Amino acid sequence: MFLTTYKRIRKHTEDICAPLKTEDYVVQPVVDVSPPKWHLGHSTWFFEAFVLKPYAQGYKEFNPDYNFVFNSYYETIGARVIRTDRGNLSRPTVEDVYKYRAYVDEAMDHFLIEHELPQELQDILLLGYNHEQQHQELLITDLKYILGHNPLFPAYNSEVDPEPDLSVTSYFQIPEGVYDIGYEGTGFCFDNELGRHKVYLHDYSIGSELVTNEEYLEFIESGGYKNFKYWHSEGWEWVKTTKAEAPLYWHLIDGQHFNYTLHGLKPVNMDEPVCHVNYYEAHAFAEWSGKRLPTEFEWEAAAPQFKWGKRWEWTESAYLPYPFYKKAPGAIGEYNGKFMVNQMVLRGASEATPVGHSRISYRNFFHPYLQWQYTGIRLAF
Amino acid sequence: MFLTTYKRIRKHTEDICAPLKTEDYVVQPVVDVSPPKWHLGHSTWFFEAFVLKPYAQGYKEFNPDYNFVFNSYYETIGARVIRTDRGNLSRPTVEDVYKYRAYVDEAMDHFLIEHELPQELQDILLLGYNHEQQHQELLITDLKYILGHNPLFPAYNSEVDPEPDLSVTSYFQIPEGVYDIGYEGTGFCFDNELGRHKVYLHDYSIGSELVTNEEYLEFIESGGYKNFKYWHSEGWEWVKTTKAEAPLYWHLIDGQHFNYTLHGLKPVNMDEPVCHVNYYEAHAFAEWSGKRLPTEFEWEAAAPQFKWGKRWEWTESAYLPYPFYKKAPGAIGEYNGKFMVNQMVLRGASEATPVGHSRISYRNFFHPYLQWQYTGIRLAF
Amino acid sequence: MFLTTYKRIRKHTEDICAPLKTEDYVVQPVVDVSPPKWHLGHSTWFFEAFVLKPYAQGYKEFNPDYNFVFNSYYETIGARVIRTDRGNLSRPTVEDVYKYRAYVDEAMDHFLIEHELPQELQDILLLGYNHEQQHQELLITDLKYILGHNPLFPAYNSEVDPEPDLSVTSYFQIPEGVYDIGYEGTGFCFDNELGRHKVYLHDYSIGSELVTNEEYLEFIESGGYKNFKYWHSEGWEWVKTTKAEAPLYWHLIDGQHFNYTLHGLKPVNMDEPVCHVNYYEAHAFAEWSGKRLPTEFEWEAAAPQFKWGKRWEWTESAYLPYPFYKKAPGAIGEYNGKFMVNQMVLRGASEATPVGHSRISYRNFFHPYLQWQYTGIRLAF
Amino acid sequence: MFLTTYKRIRKHTEDICAPLKTEDYVVQPVVDVSPPKWHLGHSTWFFEAFVLKPYAQGYKEFNPDYNFVFNSYYETIGARVIRTDRGNLSRPTVEDVYKYRAYVDEAMDHFLIEHELPQELQDILLLGYNHEQQHQELLITDLKYILGHNPLFPAYNSEVDPEPDLSVTSYFQIPEGVYDIGYEGTGFCFDNELGRHKVYLHDYSIGSELVTNEEYLEFIESGGYKNFKYWHSEGWEWVKTTKAEAPLYWHLIDGQHFNYTLHGLKPVNMDEPVCHVNYYEAHAFAEWSGKRLPTEFEWEAAAPQFKWGKRWEWTESAYLPYPFYKKAPGAIGEYNGKFMVNQMVLRGASEATPVGHSRISYRNFFHPYLQWQYTGIRLAF
Repeated sequence: MFLTTYKRIRKHTEDICAPLKTEDYVVQPVVDVSPPKWHLGHSTWFFEAFVLKPYAQGYKEFNPDYNFVFNSYYETIGARVIRTDRGNLSRPTVEDVYKYRAYVDEAMDHFLIEHELPQELQDILLLGYNHEQQHQELLITDLKYILGHNPLFPAYNSEVDPEPDLSVTSYFQIPEGVYDIGYEGTGFCFDNELGRHKVYLHDYSIGSELVTNEEYLEFIESGGYKNFKYWHSEGWEWVKTTKAEAPLYWHLIDGQHFNYTLHGLKPVNMDEPVCHVNYYEAHAFAEWSGKRLPTEFEWEAAAPQFKWGKRWEWTESAYLPYPFYKKAPGAIGEYNGKFMVNQMVLRGASEATPVGHSRISYRNFFHPYLQWQYTGIRLAF
Repeated sequence: MFLTTYKRIRKHTEDICAPLKTEDYVVQPVVDVSPPKWHLGHSTWFFEAFVLKPYAQGYKEFNPDYNFVFNSYYETIGARVIRTDRGNLSRPTVEDVYKYRAYVDEAMDHFLIEHELPQELQDILLLGYNHEQQHQELLITDLKYILGHNPLFPAYNSEVDPEPDLSVTSYFQIPEGVYDIGYEGTGFCFDNELGRHKVYLHDYSIGSELVTNEEYLEFIESGGYKNFKYWHSEGWEWVKTTKAEAPLYWHLIDGQHFNYTLHGLKPVNMDEPVCHVNYYEAHAFAEWSGKRLPTEFEWEAAAPQFKWGKRWEWTESAYLPYPFYKKAPGAIGEYNGKFMVNQMVLRGASEATPVGHSRISYRNFFHPYLQWQYTGIRLAF
Repeated sequence: MFLTTYKRIRKHTEDICAPLKTEDYVVQPVVDVSPPKWHLGHSTWFFEAFVLKPYAQGYKEFNPDYNFVFNSYYETIGARVIRTDRGNLSRPTVEDVYKYRAYVDEAMDHFLIEHELPQELQDILLLGYNHEQQHQELLITDLKYILGHNPLFPAYNSEVDPEPDLSVTSYFQIPEGVYDIGYEGTGFCFDNELGRHKVYLHDYSIGSELVTNEEYLEFIESGGYKNFKYWHSEGWEWVKTTKAEAPLYWHLIDGQHFNYTLHGLKPVNMDEPVCHVNYYEAHAFAEWSGKRLPTEFEWEAAAPQFKWGKRWEWTESAYLPYPFYKKAPGAIGEYNGKFMVNQMVLRGASEATPVGHSRISYRNFFHPYLQWQYTGIRLAF
Repeated sequence: MFLTTYKRIRKHTEDICAPLKTEDYVVQPVVDVSPPKWHLGHSTWFFEAFVLKPYAQGYKEFNPDYNFVFNSYYETIGARVIRTDRGNLSRPTVEDVYKYRAYVDEAMDHFLIEHELPQELQDILLLGYNHEQQHQELLITDLKYILGHNPLFPAYNSEVDPEPDLSVTSYFQIPEGVYDIGYEGTGFCFDNELGRHKVYLHDYSIGSELVTNEEYLEFIESGGYKNFKYWHSEGWEWVKTTKAEAPLYWHLIDGQHFNYTLHGLKPVNMDEPVCHVNYYEAHAFAEWSGKRLPTEFEWEAAAPQFKWGKRWEWTESAYLPYPFYKKAPGAIGEYNGKFMVNQMVLRGASEATPVGHSRISYRNFFHPYLQWQYTGIRLAF
């Protein structure tokens, strides 16, 4: 079973890359975006560094330099290529990276067939699968940025998006009380979801639907980006510095709003949820609307009642440890805890999230200024 | 009664400045520090802009340009001198600023004697007093930075500090349950403390004393600043970028640790609470110690049981709105809410806090990298 | 005679500062501007470091820390306060600096009365006098910047400028041939003027007068700052980055051009030579006019025929060593040679130049982007 | 004849690229380096923009967006991709760019066969050929940087360098007098070489050979990078900021000096001329040696007597217009003149210079901090 899952997940990463040209794998137009070839190598390196090298007797490393090139931020493991340099590396080539994947996959294949897996190793494998799924999502996010910031606006694929759902937003009322928060169950979850604990919530209402492009356009057209009073002080600095006037990927052409999608540049579909807004924008929109963003606890308590999964949703919660949070020992322990400052929690999932990779207790997190994720807005009050 | 308080608070600001030379009022060695003369002018401007100009009939503005020079961040009121420029202004002179204070004080004197104050105005006055007290604290913090970063290390005063308290840290155990958080009472508080609400806390223990210099030195000497595993990822970046090795104001001279105090450069007193650490350092120390920082809710629930007020204490809580938080309308509403992102809450008070300006519900907040406040560490687990 | 000159020059520095407020001595609004108190201390330090300490037996240094504070760029002498920090120092106070001047002046007084001066020392004294005169000029330039960038536009003095000369520009024709360039004589000159040598000049014509504000305004109004074709590539970058539209200190107020002068903000006098343009602007104006800037050799060969001394004049020559240039040994050798890259030569003198400090062979030099000097334009073709 | 030359030059560009992987064409590791695919496109765009579009009736532009992507700095022609963004563009792909070259080459083929060329067009073609040759040289310089900054140090080719010449340096003495400088003849030259004119030179001596790696290593080992006195002030800043200790591409590995060459990482050959030093280093070396760099005029007057062409040679001359310099009208006039500030002249040629592209009057120019060219040192005194 571990092998089947391994193969399925690994193949999905390569399927995502199938429409890319060699050159698309290489560039890094902004520091937060990684070159697709780096995602391919890094997710492979995870299995080599944490499974094959420590557990597979006789395993011969593919290339010792790759540890240097494909490590991301695991300070325990060794020196790494500083992040802004990733887009400067023409070698290893894309072909080399696929060879690296094939080599590691073959070794994993043998290893998974031939061994009983102790619990510890099962845990690492599960983490590796989920890690690769996270990078699948980032792959889509990053290749959208790479193609969407090219002056030729190339399409990634030519399929047509499904029609958006046209439900009208209603508000669920959630009663005051003590709620249980955090992962419950026996499957996989990240360490930051663990430590199920109690949170007291006061009465609140939360929207059944995400904010649409039409609603967001009303915010824009009523001067939302021109009035400091809706914005955090540093959000307003962001507006002034970047001269932001709309979500990422929007282009005003001859009076009409277009946005870059994976099918190319298209007129904005007003019925779709607004996407690619950062936390500052989400917060400013909520202020303008007279409502607010939900906390991550409010979201989790109410989520069984509404549809979610179309967009990552900004919450009003900073990314902080749960009361019973414990870091795992060693390099695995670097996974989440060290990012618990200056980031905001997002809940839900998006169209870029791999199937089976979302949970009601999943805590995603990004810096407040970032727009490049598939991020949307749900209101509460 | 309003007049007596007004005079007492205004005089205290000038008393703090009494030991300064004219030149000390002018400089701004780093962006977060404001020149003392700016604090003097800005706290005066508050009463002119929010009391005299709107309410005192016939009041003649001292100098219309001062609105431009002494506004801080009230976007509602008009253009402001950008913050990094404050230290470039030789005019208005210190003498001019004292004249401005005298002029506004005299007008306030007449105004407060001659008028019945409606509730709205009483609220603004109270806010003005507390605002000036906040700037008194910043004045001390900033003049320490100005003098402590001068290569001549001039003393601010020559009084001797009281002997530190030598109590040994014990831990109070606080039982699980629902606690009420937020300001309760009829006196003054800031809007960010309002909305008393319920928070669920699990069992926890919290230290009776602050961490001492001796304990912190043990962290330093055991390699605390050299091991990434205690640090947040961005805290570690801060260590590497700034080459930090100790709290702000510490100097290692011929093998002995000194720190700059308001009485000049002195050997570090090992029994005193450690001071001038930022959130990254506080968190790393807690990690190293095997404990953690308390949340602001844990702090508030336990505070009646321990002594506090010697140092602002970093908590593990991000600065976010309370459930029932409402911004006041107009410029006053810019006071707190717009800073509620990317900052951490500090609780308590410090030796620089004016008498009468501290409360158990008081929420101070700073960016995680800042060391220049009088900030210390209390542990929990 | 050395003593009389010493006293006269030292007094003139203090006379320049007489109209300043204490606060004006302290600030540094931009990296190229030094606080006036620093000029006062640094020119004093020169005599202490290069005369009193090495030559005056029994001389007791005023304060050893001052070597650190008032050294400028003499790497030979010891660590220095990095240049951007000068404006952060409130101590030594202005009063301290004047005490330092008085102390050194008294020691110099005794020293100059009591000693025969060997040639070597006479040379150092002459250099010290000329060094102080250079700082007198910089003092005026810098205090103009400090006051002119204050939102209150304070005047430095209230005297009225003399009426400008109204001569019409004619062009002197200089015949092709070999010309002698460089200092000739027995008086003082800087090392960069030495090594009189031959330069071949082709026929050229050079203007009898400087370009006026009226002529420069015509350049502005015909789109000079909007058309890249007049500009060097990096000059054009400078225009776009700084959004420059006119010389430094010009302000367009209700459709009229004003400029800040030492008497305050005044309407631009169209008959005066344009001032405070950088090399990029001077070059762009020359391109627009269909002429060019003279080389420093053309300037020197023709200067006996025209009036000069109203403005430093940009030339088309980069600051490079003359053929026989030799650096003096030791710290004195750091005076000029190490700046001979990426700067342009200016010839002439300005209203800020002390009487007796100008020569036809004098080579001033600044980076091409700097506007804060009293810099003007003479054309050639 | 024009067609034969066109084909030969165009083919040579592609020959240079033959050993590259697709990925090597795409990256831009530092702002001064352009991606090879950009050189391929830009040199093609020159012929499309300046020959085909204005002169070839019925020519259909390959892709109008390419004008935006492949323009370099011709402000006359239209908006351009800002320089730091070149390495962010995955599209057009390398294959697309080769198609673009083939399309333009075919159109040029027809055009050159079918038309009599007026003088004006012959001049443009010659400029285009020389422009492409300049980019051939930059291609080699840039691909060396791309591969030499990859942690895998891939080789570009596996040929062995010819043995260096082992001649000992002697000094030619050149007598004082008036010399003619600038291009003379009827062939192609750039506008910056034109205007043959007279320059007076004093007696000087100039080395017969370039400085070798062995001589440069002596400078390094005697503390050349540690002693400010050899350096310009801003050169010394460069040393401290970049922590430079040797020429670009040198790596000290286990006590031995290696450098990256196009054949991979090799021990430094001590008999070869030192390469990849910037002007600051060349000047500091000359100071240390007790000699100096020649001016560009001294170089040109003496060049018939010595071998040159192995390395571009830094001179002591700033890049400035010759006395009779005239810019061409229109976009062609942007070629050289607008760079005549803050750059130093290099004379000679290098192993990367295409055969037939060097002349004794050729004036190359770079900013003083740049090391990535094939730059060496010849001494004079």
